[in-house]
Amino acid sequence: MSFQPHNTANAMIPVRLRLRDSGAAKGDKTNQFDPKVAHLIDHTLLKADATRTDVRRVCEEARRYEFASVCVNPFWVDFVRAELAGSVVKTCTVAGFPLGANLSEIKAAEARSAVRHGAGEVDMVLNIGALRAEEYEIAKNDIQDVVRVCHDAGAIVKVILETALLTDEQKVTACRIAQDAGADFVKTSTGFGPSGATVHDVALMRKSVGSVMGVKASGGIRTLEDFRKMVEAGASRVGASASVRIAEASAV
Amino acid sequence: MSFQPHNTANAMIPVRLRLRDSGAAKGDKTNQFDPKVAHLIDHTLLKADATRTDVRRVCEEARRYEFASVCVNPFWVDFVRAELAGSVVKTCTVAGFPLGANLSEIKAAEARSAVRHGAGEVDMVLNIGALRAEEYEIAKNDIQDVVRVCHDAGAIVKVILETALLTDEQKVTACRIAQDAGADFVKTSTGFGPSGATVHDVALMRKSVGSVMGVKASGGIRTLEDFRKMVEAGASRVGASASVRIAEASAV
Repeated sequence: MSFQPHNTANAMIPVRLRLRDSGAAKGDKTNQFDPKVAHLIDHTLLKADATRTDVRRVCEEARRYEFASVCVNPFWVDFVRAELAGSVVKTCTVAGFPLGANLSEIKAAEARSAVRHGAGEVDMVLNIGALRAEEYEIAKNDIQDVVRVCHDAGAIVKVILETALLTDEQKVTACRIAQDAGADFVKTSTGFGPSGATVHDVALMRKSVGSVMGVKASGGIRTLEDFRKMVEAGASRVGASASVRIAEASAV
Repeated sequence: MSFQPHNTANAMIPVRLRLRDSGAAKGDKTNQFDPKVAHLIDHTLLKADATRTDVRRVCEEARRYEFASVCVNPFWVDFVRAELAGSVVKTCTVAGFPLGANLSEIKAAEARSAVRHGAGEVDMVLNIGALRAEEYEIAKNDIQDVVRVCHDAGAIVKVILETALLTDEQKVTACRIAQDAGADFVKTSTGFGPSGATVHDVALMRKSVGSVMGVKASGGIRTLEDFRKMVEAGASRVGASASVRIAEASAV
């Protein structure tokens, strides 16, 4: 199966990597890791207490390993975009994060602000309460408002389902709604919920959205083994903060 | 020490209750609890997966016990205001919650939207990363932007420090900044951080802000004993989801 570069078409097609079949350059110490791993990772720092020093370090790591993106809270978008200037690494941020129970107008305003400051990807949280109460129009319009803003600016949207709070039936419904609303990815978890990505959920989401949309696994992915399982289950992107360790473990 | 009614001056003056000295009516089953307890509680439901049914129940409880406010995520403000119409219970919501690392313009927009929809109190989260990195002007301006919007609409602002992420010195600095920025309350915790309110932190915050500002203890307050300790340490408001249990335990 061919490698889907992270900087074209946003990895819409599921990539099932055979991790031991790496084409990474050998000998060059800084390039011993498998780029097919690093290129699928959103290098993530969403902690409330992250400082400028922390964010700068994450950007440096992302440039070095060529992660797909650096994913930070909205306050840091401007800084990250500047730190990543001239690299292939995208700036990713969040909207309505991590609870999702914000007004749509605020999620859209947050997205608008993010793309204006240079974010190429926005990970928004579903209105989970609306979904659970079968208020599907609310959930769909909420996503559509963010999608419109992002697509107008050439940015993509990932919809975080927070799968730990949903039944399987609700997960499938949420996938359908995200797809109908024009989102580019569905994503498992915020990392702040009761638990993170599972193989079961990633496979279910991949089955639900087919091969056209992206599926991002996130939350609790700390090792190359975790990463591999998620990609094999159908993830086309992985969110992690242990990205450097995962990339280093992929060295061939 | 006299009882500070929850609906005047927003309990700015620390109230140190003697819980056994209750003036609650006896005999009337629905009024056996101590109103001096209930009147200090922000009845809180900030879970991501809360549904309309959950929010309605919380509003009914708040009317019955006359809690100070119902505190919900922004999506629910309109609904809560309508459910509480004609009662003394205020509508409280959050901004930049729970991570605080949003742009100030978005926190202010969230607050503006909230007060327009009827919120009388807005609990915003400090820019914790800026505070920790000693970027004090950023932290202060962030609060000021929200305070301006809220005060213009007659609403009050509580600044959540997320004390579990700060040193004592940083907590004191955060209190000073919140006070300088014109906030009405400092508040310990989001309930989503590593830990919640402690007697030590509430006492430290009360000492820092003096008697003019409010201090709200929140996070992990589940019993009347917890409540009592917080008020004795200087809290003039308590955020809780176990509010009914606390109020019932105060019955004399």
